Amino acid sequence: MSTIHPHGSERVTHTVGKKALIASLRQFLPDSAILAETEQLRAFECDGLSAYQCLPWLVVLPDSVEQVQQLLRVCHRLGVPVVARGAGTGLAGGAIPLDNGVLLSMARFNRILHIDAANRLARVQPGVRNVAISQAVAQHGLYYAPDPSSQIACSIGGNVAENSGGVHCLKYGLTTHNILRLQIVTMDGERVTIGDHGLDSPGYDLLALLTGSEGMLGVIVEISVKLLPIPECAQVILAAFNEIELAGNAVAAIIAEGLIPAGLEMMDKAAIRAAEDFVRAGYPLDAAAILLCEMDGTEEQVESDIMKASQLLQRQGAIEVRVADSEQDRQKMWAGRKAAFPAVGRISADYYCMDGTIPRRYLARVLKKIAELSDRYALPVVNVFHAGDGNLHPLILYDANNEGEMAKAERLGGDILRLSVEVGGTITGEHGVGVEKINHMCLQFKEGELALFHAVKLAFDEKGLLNPGKAVPSLHRCAEFGAMHVHRGELPHPDLERF
Amino acid sequence: MSTIHPHGSERVTHTVGKKALIASLRQFLPDSAILAETEQLRAFECDGLSAYQCLPWLVVLPDSVEQVQQLLRVCHRLGVPVVARGAGTGLAGGAIPLDNGVLLSMARFNRILHIDAANRLARVQPGVRNVAISQAVAQHGLYYAPDPSSQIACSIGGNVAENSGGVHCLKYGLTTHNILRLQIVTMDGERVTIGDHGLDSPGYDLLALLTGSEGMLGVIVEISVKLLPIPECAQVILAAFNEIELAGNAVAAIIAEGLIPAGLEMMDKAAIRAAEDFVRAGYPLDAAAILLCEMDGTEEQVESDIMKASQLLQRQGAIEVRVADSEQDRQKMWAGRKAAFPAVGRISADYYCMDGTIPRRYLARVLKKIAELSDRYALPVVNVFHAGDGNLHPLILYDANNEGEMAKAERLGGDILRLSVEVGGTITGEHGVGVEKINHMCLQFKEGELALFHAVKLAFDEKGLLNPGKAVPSLHRCAEFGAMHVHRGELPHPDLERF
Repeated sequence: MSTIHPHGSERVTHTVGKKALIASLRQFLPDSAILAETEQLRAFECDGLSAYQCLPWLVVLPDSVEQVQQLLRVCHRLGVPVVARGAGTGLAGGAIPLDNGVLLSMARFNRILHIDAANRLARVQPGVRNVAISQAVAQHGLYYAPDPSSQIACSIGGNVAENSGGVHCLKYGLTTHNILRLQIVTMDGERVTIGDHGLDSPGYDLLALLTGSEGMLGVIVEISVKLLPIPECAQVILAAFNEIELAGNAVAAIIAEGLIPAGLEMMDKAAIRAAEDFVRAGYPLDAAAILLCEMDGTEEQVESDIMKASQLLQRQGAIEVRVADSEQDRQKMWAGRKAAFPAVGRISADYYCMDGTIPRRYLARVLKKIAELSDRYALPVVNVFHAGDGNLHPLILYDANNEGEMAKAERLGGDILRLSVEVGGTITGEHGVGVEKINHMCLQFKEGELALFHAVKLAFDEKGLLNPGKAVPSLHRCAEFGAMHVHRGELPHPDLERF
Repeated sequence: MSTIHPHGSERVTHTVGKKALIASLRQFLPDSAILAETEQLRAFECDGLSAYQCLPWLVVLPDSVEQVQQLLRVCHRLGVPVVARGAGTGLAGGAIPLDNGVLLSMARFNRILHIDAANRLARVQPGVRNVAISQAVAQHGLYYAPDPSSQIACSIGGNVAENSGGVHCLKYGLTTHNILRLQIVTMDGERVTIGDHGLDSPGYDLLALLTGSEGMLGVIVEISVKLLPIPECAQVILAAFNEIELAGNAVAAIIAEGLIPAGLEMMDKAAIRAAEDFVRAGYPLDAAAILLCEMDGTEEQVESDIMKASQLLQRQGAIEVRVADSEQDRQKMWAGRKAAFPAVGRISADYYCMDGTIPRRYLARVLKKIAELSDRYALPVVNVFHAGDGNLHPLILYDANNEGEMAKAERLGGDILRLSVEVGGTITGEHGVGVEKINHMCLQFKEGELALFHAVKLAFDEKGLLNPGKAVPSLHRCAEFGAMHVHRGELPHPDLERF
């Protein structure tokens, strides 16, 4: 693991002493809410992107909105930057701390404030774990739909900050489609309500703007989430293909048919083998790729959808189409997919998980191109991903102990992102930009578009103190990176005429 | 009709002469694209909110993005304000022109640029009519879901600017949920791409921010809309109640049950009578209220949903529950609802259509309160609205020829909006703020929230030249209006503890 300071040209400097700051914070925070010893700080030096690390200067753990307001007011006045952190499971380094700033942990905001079953919403604090919401509302026959793989551990505040997805977001949407209202505190300590419990809110729609803004615009202190009725029934199909291109085309065909699976996941041969070795999910080891296609709804609907999808998958050249014959069998089919990442962890010293999204129609061609890149770099790539959304998760296998191999993996990852942008896709589907992909934002956006992002940032945080150096690169950084904007917007039909 | 200049403290002043400006515009616009004669200007003096009128200074009708860019560059340089206009069907006065600014008509941007059936999206110009999109893609079995009542006439660009809804938005969402990407031109003439054809886009989510921003942030020059498969089947239930409160409770019960109707509309006795007199839809004239509840999907799904909803409506005390017995009967049931506004136009010299949204659980109580207000002001109120969304459309009947009656109707409307905010709702569901409700924004938002809106506006349009005096009031205006912020955000559970 290397210690990389993520901040180039975006570094915020100040001359505040740590002791003096702590003395100010003690005016409104108990001692137990301020961590300053190296051993205490160590636990916060990275998030889920552990290749990047930085020992925080100071960690603060408030437990009331008023404390957050006071903290931000002090930091705003002194010019001290602040990084907000949820559960620290993010995969793009959005919560990597600063060596001269405050890490604001929202871990103590862990209460479900109110469940309103009649209106199908709940008000929760940001530190509540994703899965805990569904558990708390299950007695009303409801659940919270977005389900990132980390849902046992990740916090809903982090989900909002990163606009997290999950297996079910094809049908039920990303976090942004499943929240109604936020309470945030701006960098100058103002508490602001964003969005509304109603259908629509007058004024500019700042709710979606805040969602996925990676802690750059405000600190989230309360979230109103939408709840959905638990589907009456769910059923899954496993379809095996002996060519990965056929599986890619089958995905496009299912969506084009108008079917909306609750989940539509793809795994390639390497992923199938790794998962099968680990959890014995009963996957066909000779297949080049499998699709897992889940339908949910009423029994009648599911039965009809499963039949249509099965026939379509057969027509698309599947060598095997198998419907789970029991709830236990369904769970077993999913167990392999859910264990795929740790399964890959067992066969490789390290892996680097990419997160590009492409138009579904290019799935087959992009997967082929990734295989070519894998050969060229001599690094294996395992594909296990949300095929229905076109959201790729190529896992690049490498060994950080081999000199230069991590850098090689990063270059291969960069090529995959560039490829995603070239076919009209994006450099991230659900993991965020953080520090990991901040340079690749220069490929995705034109100078005028980045300038608009910076202007919006200044509207919320005119001193640039919230999470500096993340998500949106400075124009200076893009110039240094040396690769402005691949093409988007230059061609009249970027997704039609390239590749 | 009164001629009201909408701009108080937000008026933009400049010293540019009209002749000089026209000479500049002739550099890149043909004569036919510049209208300056009073007779030509007359057609643009109001939009769908015809009670407010202003003769525009100058009307410009470009037909290329480059012309829009050049126009905005000139106006930006000279400090001349600009109001963009679609089809002019908006109900909140968002497109009312300025007596010292350019009215930018997007009427000539009327082409469907590309239909991508496989990815279920279309790229269209902003002047394309809403219904024309569905007509053009019907051959692929697809349609564009949001269906404002004005869909035959209204433009998709205007729909985006106002975040329009419609009968089907309960199930299929507002405009913001049905678009993928925008091309806009900012006030300084820069062409910018907002959003993406993929699932999610990195960087701040400016797509939702632009949607519903009422022409204040940029001029939309291209829209990528999502297309949906035409449902296999649709069926409607008419349920009659002899108390309006029972109908309100039935709506909440249907949603709480987890059913998602494609449309769930309510009409009260006065609306039933007016519609029945006009189109003979077969509505029960003795009912205090009717609900129209439509289900769509596959035949199995619809059959099952209709059965569940029928039983539930009976349990909720409906005196009659009738399922349409043919497609013709279904169309007839809807004909009354669709003709309700013109039907009310037949029984009253003038009417004023409000657009508040409230939590569904308060439907019954708010309707009762509206009836009390109607008595107090001695003005009849007719209710016909999107009950499933809690989106009220009280029509206040008045006669503008009676001295003071329009002002009285406006005061009654204001009271209804105040009531909506008090129960945790909003002052607009789908019509926008425009000039009509700009003062009522002061009830809805706190000073800090309005300040954030202004900061966002400046990020896009630092000179404040785009559609000044609309949608977001200045703090000065709120102070003049004398009624800052009713309560939202002050109470820990605003929607639970009031009313």
